[in-house]
Amino acid sequence: MDWNLKILGSGSALPTNKRKLSGQLLNTQYHSFLFDCSEGIQFRFKEYNVKFFSINRIFISHFHGDHIFGVFGLITTFHMLKRTEPLFIYAFKGLDKVCEDIFKLTNTKLEFELIFVYLNDDRDKVIFEDEHIEVHSFPLKHRIPCCGFFVKEKLNHLNLNKEFLENNDIPLDWLSRLQKGEDFVKNDGEIISNSKITLPPRPLKSFAYCSDTSFFPEIVDSIKNVKLLYHEATFDNEHQKDAINKLHSTAEEAAKIATLANADTLLIGHFSSRFININIFKEEAKMQFYNVICAEDGMDITF
Amino acid sequence: MDWNLKILGSGSALPTNKRKLSGQLLNTQYHSFLFDCSEGIQFRFKEYNVKFFSINRIFISHFHGDHIFGVFGLITTFHMLKRTEPLFIYAFKGLDKVCEDIFKLTNTKLEFELIFVYLNDDRDKVIFEDEHIEVHSFPLKHRIPCCGFFVKEKLNHLNLNKEFLENNDIPLDWLSRLQKGEDFVKNDGEIISNSKITLPPRPLKSFAYCSDTSFFPEIVDSIKNVKLLYHEATFDNEHQKDAINKLHSTAEEAAKIATLANADTLLIGHFSSRFININIFKEEAKMQFYNVICAEDGMDITF
Repeated sequence: MDWNLKILGSGSALPTNKRKLSGQLLNTQYHSFLFDCSEGIQFRFKEYNVKFFSINRIFISHFHGDHIFGVFGLITTFHMLKRTEPLFIYAFKGLDKVCEDIFKLTNTKLEFELIFVYLNDDRDKVIFEDEHIEVHSFPLKHRIPCCGFFVKEKLNHLNLNKEFLENNDIPLDWLSRLQKGEDFVKNDGEIISNSKITLPPRPLKSFAYCSDTSFFPEIVDSIKNVKLLYHEATFDNEHQKDAINKLHSTAEEAAKIATLANADTLLIGHFSSRFININIFKEEAKMQFYNVICAEDGMDITF
Repeated sequence: MDWNLKILGSGSALPTNKRKLSGQLLNTQYHSFLFDCSEGIQFRFKEYNVKFFSINRIFISHFHGDHIFGVFGLITTFHMLKRTEPLFIYAFKGLDKVCEDIFKLTNTKLEFELIFVYLNDDRDKVIFEDEHIEVHSFPLKHRIPCCGFFVKEKLNHLNLNKEFLENNDIPLDWLSRLQKGEDFVKNDGEIISNSKITLPPRPLKSFAYCSDTSFFPEIVDSIKNVKLLYHEATFDNEHQKDAINKLHSTAEEAAKIATLANADTLLIGHFSSRFININIFKEEAKMQFYNVICAEDGMDITF
């Protein structure tokens, strides 16, 4: 089943009428993950008619306001809608205490569990894993501690070759063993190689979220061969000095990372509010990488 | 000069596409006051093309999330826009500490002064005064401590009757004394009554902000003869039990307050998100008070 990424905000720092602030919702068959949670995220869900009650994990890259100020309102709304399912928040230490203080201030006694999982930015690390996917965090390079995230699908079973099954008498209890990759052993001891019974697996899906960061090729090992790479591109080449000073990236730098990582598709966003027209971002990125999408608020990317 | 009230959000608790959460901007010739500051207020300013950099005082009625979650983003935006003017926030104790913690978390070192003035809800009290206006806070009745606000224009000078001035020889240094209400004493000792020299003053402007509260006639003394009364009306009569349980008001109750206070105009808002059509609110309010406006997001009221 396809994954869908919904862009909830493609701007940075100062919101405009066209671009709100950071937030992306990744829906897979089994998960609903929110990456960053800027002010007004809950309004975007309404505006784009997106189901958001099933969000089970929120990943916060860093603590700049344009990435976190929607957390308090979203949690309050979950509370008012009588959520009971726990909500996991992956973030550096500190947001938990602020949330506790804010909900004390607003007299909000949550009736669901808010579970904070602390990030750290010292190395690549698995922060969540189940039978379907795993999620890594890895260090980015920004003015304050900041992590990227890499979500990758697990190969949890092979597809069986129907034609082979129809022509051979395979006992039912063998099916799941074959799907896991075992060779088949007949009653007479003959071994049939798994590759004859199963189909080659489809390419596995993966998504990387890299916001905010300066050009930092050290991340490439963490996102190698990613299908969809979101990488911030706050500035164009003309403003590279701003990118350096503020530890952000240019579109061209984002594209260099996509090339180095052998990504399938590059999605850029987090555009500075000074740019009304962002054609230049695409042009400059395309000098380094062929397949570039510029994020727009409300955009869906299915992959 | 006229006062203008801009409605930034007319809904309550759960935002909808049509109604965002509480916030009203009052502009007079000399002041720009924000009453409550819900999530996304800074987006509303952009959306409605409202100048907001000159806001100098924010009045926070109480600490429910739908009245305060826009504070952090708005202050951060002031910071990014290089504000230097101090910002006064009138609120109960506690928001100052949370702001301090949040700006520490986001590594935001404000370069303007954030001055918190603590409210208390024990009695009617002058919380701000200058030569043009005074602002009172007064207790409302809600689930947590909550204050209303009353802004009233001061009579700072009388207008002189030009015809009288043209026909009489009044020394220049007397003019400001006459504007303050003194009778004129001629050189020969004759006294001319001030009422013959000055025009009757125009009616003074005033605005009261009452959100959130149950029906609470004790507030009437604090808002007597107010020109524009904003009073919350979260429910219609059919849901009066909800109003009672949640310490909110119905439209009819808001209108009763307007009648008791001898208000000129009643503005109702803070409508529960369950109501798509709010005609019933106006109908029920009009049974008690003749001049009712239902708040809509983006509405301007000039008075």
